[in-house]
Amino acid sequence: MMNSQEWIQTDLRELDRMLSLINLEEAEALGSALLQAERVFVMGRGRTGLVLEMFAMRLTQLGRQVHIIGSPTTPSVQPEDLFLAASASGKTESVRLAAEQAALIGAKIVVITSRTEGELNQRAAVCLHLTGGDKYSVDTEHSRMPLASIFEQGLLVLLDGVIAEMAEGIGISPEAMAARHANIE
Amino acid sequence: MMNSQEWIQTDLRELDRMLSLINLEEAEALGSALLQAERVFVMGRGRTGLVLEMFAMRLTQLGRQVHIIGSPTTPSVQPEDLFLAASASGKTESVRLAAEQAALIGAKIVVITSRTEGELNQRAAVCLHLTGGDKYSVDTEHSRMPLASIFEQGLLVLLDGVIAEMAEGIGISPEAMAARHANIE
Amino acid sequence: MMNSQEWIQTDLRELDRMLSLINLEEAEALGSALLQAERVFVMGRGRTGLVLEMFAMRLTQLGRQVHIIGSPTTPSVQPEDLFLAASASGKTESVRLAAEQAALIGAKIVVITSRTEGELNQRAAVCLHLTGGDKYSVDTEHSRMPLASIFEQGLLVLLDGVIAEMAEGIGISPEAMAARHANIE
Amino acid sequence: MMNSQEWIQTDLRELDRMLSLINLEEAEALGSALLQAERVFVMGRGRTGLVLEMFAMRLTQLGRQVHIIGSPTTPSVQPEDLFLAASASGKTESVRLAAEQAALIGAKIVVITSRTEGELNQRAAVCLHLTGGDKYSVDTEHSRMPLASIFEQGLLVLLDGVIAEMAEGIGISPEAMAARHANIE
Repeated sequence: MMNSQEWIQTDLRELDRMLSLINLEEAEALGSALLQAERVFVMGRGRTGLVLEMFAMRLTQLGRQVHIIGSPTTPSVQPEDLFLAASASGKTESVRLAAEQAALIGAKIVVITSRTEGELNQRAAVCLHLTGGDKYSVDTEHSRMPLASIFEQGLLVLLDGVIAEMAEGIGISPEAMAARHANIE
Repeated sequence: MMNSQEWIQTDLRELDRMLSLINLEEAEALGSALLQAERVFVMGRGRTGLVLEMFAMRLTQLGRQVHIIGSPTTPSVQPEDLFLAASASGKTESVRLAAEQAALIGAKIVVITSRTEGELNQRAAVCLHLTGGDKYSVDTEHSRMPLASIFEQGLLVLLDGVIAEMAEGIGISPEAMAARHANIE
Repeated sequence: MMNSQEWIQTDLRELDRMLSLINLEEAEALGSALLQAERVFVMGRGRTGLVLEMFAMRLTQLGRQVHIIGSPTTPSVQPEDLFLAASASGKTESVRLAAEQAALIGAKIVVITSRTEGELNQRAAVCLHLTGGDKYSVDTEHSRMPLASIFEQGLLVLLDGVIAEMAEGIGISPEAMAARHANIE
Repeated sequence: MMNSQEWIQTDLRELDRMLSLINLEEAEALGSALLQAERVFVMGRGRTGLVLEMFAMRLTQLGRQVHIIGSPTTPSVQPEDLFLAASASGKTESVRLAAEQAALIGAKIVVITSRTEGELNQRAAVCLHLTGGDKYSVDTEHSRMPLASIFEQGLLVLLDGVIAEMAEGIGISPEAMAARHANIE
C-alpha cells in the first residue's frame, strides 16, 4: 500500500511522461487556432468538462470571448467560431454529437483526446493527442491512477501552458489578467 | 388535504395577486434600465438564482450581453454595467455583499425583492417589489406555498414579461430568438 | 405594443389555461411515482433543466434523495431509481438519449412534455402532458410568449404543486423544509 | 518568448516543487479526516472550486456522500459533517464566511491553502499547506505561471493522490469506480 505522497510521485511521473510525448506541431496548431479565433466554444463531460471550464476562465481573463456548451448564456455557434472538444476516450457520445453539429455549422473543430483515430478525430481541423499515461490509450502501458485522472491533469497543464504562451504573445501581464478576473465572487 | 391540482389553483391565485400588485412605474424603470444597459450581470442564490439564469438565457437570445455572477466565463464588472440582484428576503448575505461590491465599482444596481426596506434596497437605482404572496413580506398575509416559491414563480413570470416587451420593442421575432438559441445542446 | 404588465396578464391567462388542462390521473400518477421512489434523477436541457434543478432543491428540502444528470456528484442510475425527463418539444436529442439509457438500465421513466406522442413518451411509465399554451403543441393555438416560456412556467407551477402535496402528505411543515434548506450559501 | 512546451516544462518544475514541500503529517491528517467523515461538503471559488468539483466526482465514485456548496441538491451541513474549504490566498471572502458558518454549526473544518496563517487557517481542525509555487505564498519565489494556476494544479494532483490512497485502502478497484461513475451523460 502506498501513502498519498507516493501516489503523488507516481502521478507526477505519469504526468511528466504524458506531457513529454505531446507532438510539438500539434501544440503549435492548437495555440494558433486559439489565437486566430474570434470566439471559442468548449465542450467536454465530467472532469474533462470541468478542466475546460478552468481554461475558459483563463481565456476570459485574456479578454477573449469564450462560451461553455450547456451554459445558459451560451449563444449559437457560427461558422467563424472555434469549437474545442475534449474527451479522453474520444467516444463520449454527447461530445461526439456536439462536434458533429458544430462541424455541420461550419465551425473549426479542435479536438484533444488520447485516442489516435475515430470519428471525433476525423472531424478535427486540429487534433492534439495526450497519450502514454491514460487507461484509454491503446499504444502504451496503462496509468496506475484511477480512470482518466492523468488525461484530465495533463489537459489542465497543457491548456495552462497554452494560456501562458498566449498571455506572453499578446502582451498581457498577470496583473492585467488579475484586473480582468471576475471582481465579484 | 389538497391534491396537486388544488395546490396549483391555490398557487395561481397567489401568483395572480402578487403580480397584480407590481408597481407599474417600477416595472417600466426595470425595462428601461435593461434596454439601456450595454451588459447585464445577474446575481441570486438558490432557486432565485436559477430563475435569473433562465432570464439570462432569454437575454442572450435577444442578442444582449449578459453574465451570471459565479460562472467561469463572467468578466469583471465595470461602472457602465447593470447589476441585477434578486432576493426574496432581501437579506441573502452573498447577494448583499455582491451588490455592495458592484455599487463600489459604480455599476447601476437594480434589485427585485419582497422587502420594502433594508440595505439591499438602499443600494438600488431601481427597486422592484414583489409582495403579497411571499412568506417574507411583512405587509400582507403569508403564502400557503412552501418557502419563497411564489416569489420565485412571480420573478420568472415578471422577467418573461419584460423579455416579451423587449423583444417587441427591439423588433426581434420569436423566430429570430430561436435562431440565436444555443444550437448545440 | 403591450407593456410588461399587459404581457404578464397575457402570460397568466395562458398559464392558467395550460394548467387547467392537466389530466388529473396523470398528475396523481406523477405524485405517486415520486413518493414511492427511493431516488429521483432529473434530466432536462436549457430553461427546462433549470426548472428541474429548482424542483430538485425542494425534493432535497423534503429529505428525499435526488440527483441532477450531469452534476459532478451524481451517481450511476440503478433499476430501482426514478428517472424524470422533461422536454417541451419531446424531441431534445440529449434528453431522448438519456431516457433511452435509463430505460435500458431498468429505471422507471417519468416524462413531462407538451408532445402527445413520440419516442420519449413511449418510454414513459408515467407521462404528464402540458399542452394548450405551448408553441410546440400541435392540437391547440400557439402561445404568444417567446419560445417555450409557458411550458417552463407551467412545469414550475406543476412541480411546486406536487411538492406542496408531498409535504402535506409526508407531514413536513414549511419550517422543517427551511431547516433542511442549505444552511451555507 | 517561450513556446507552450517550454511553459509546460516550467509548470511541471513548479508543480513538482510545490508537491514535494507538502507536509506528510498534514497529508495523512487530510486522508484520515476524509475516511472518517460520513459526509463531505466542499467549498471553493473560481478554478479552485472547479478542482473541488473534480474531487467530489471521484469521492462519489468511491461510494462516499459528498456535496458541493451552492448546488441545488446540497442539504444543510450538520455537526458530524466534514467541511473542506480551499483557497489559494486564504482570503476569499465567501469561502471565509462559509467556513465561519460551518464552524458555528460544529462541522469539522479542513482547509487547503497556500497561506500560513489567518482566519481561515485558525478555523481548521486540519490545515494542509500548498506552498512554494504560488504567487500568494510569502516564503518563496513567485510562480511564473499566471495567477494561482500552480496552486490549482497542485490541489488537483494532491486530491487525486488522496483518492488513489483511499481507493486502495477501502479496497475499491478502478473497475468498481467506473461502475459507480455516472452512467448517463
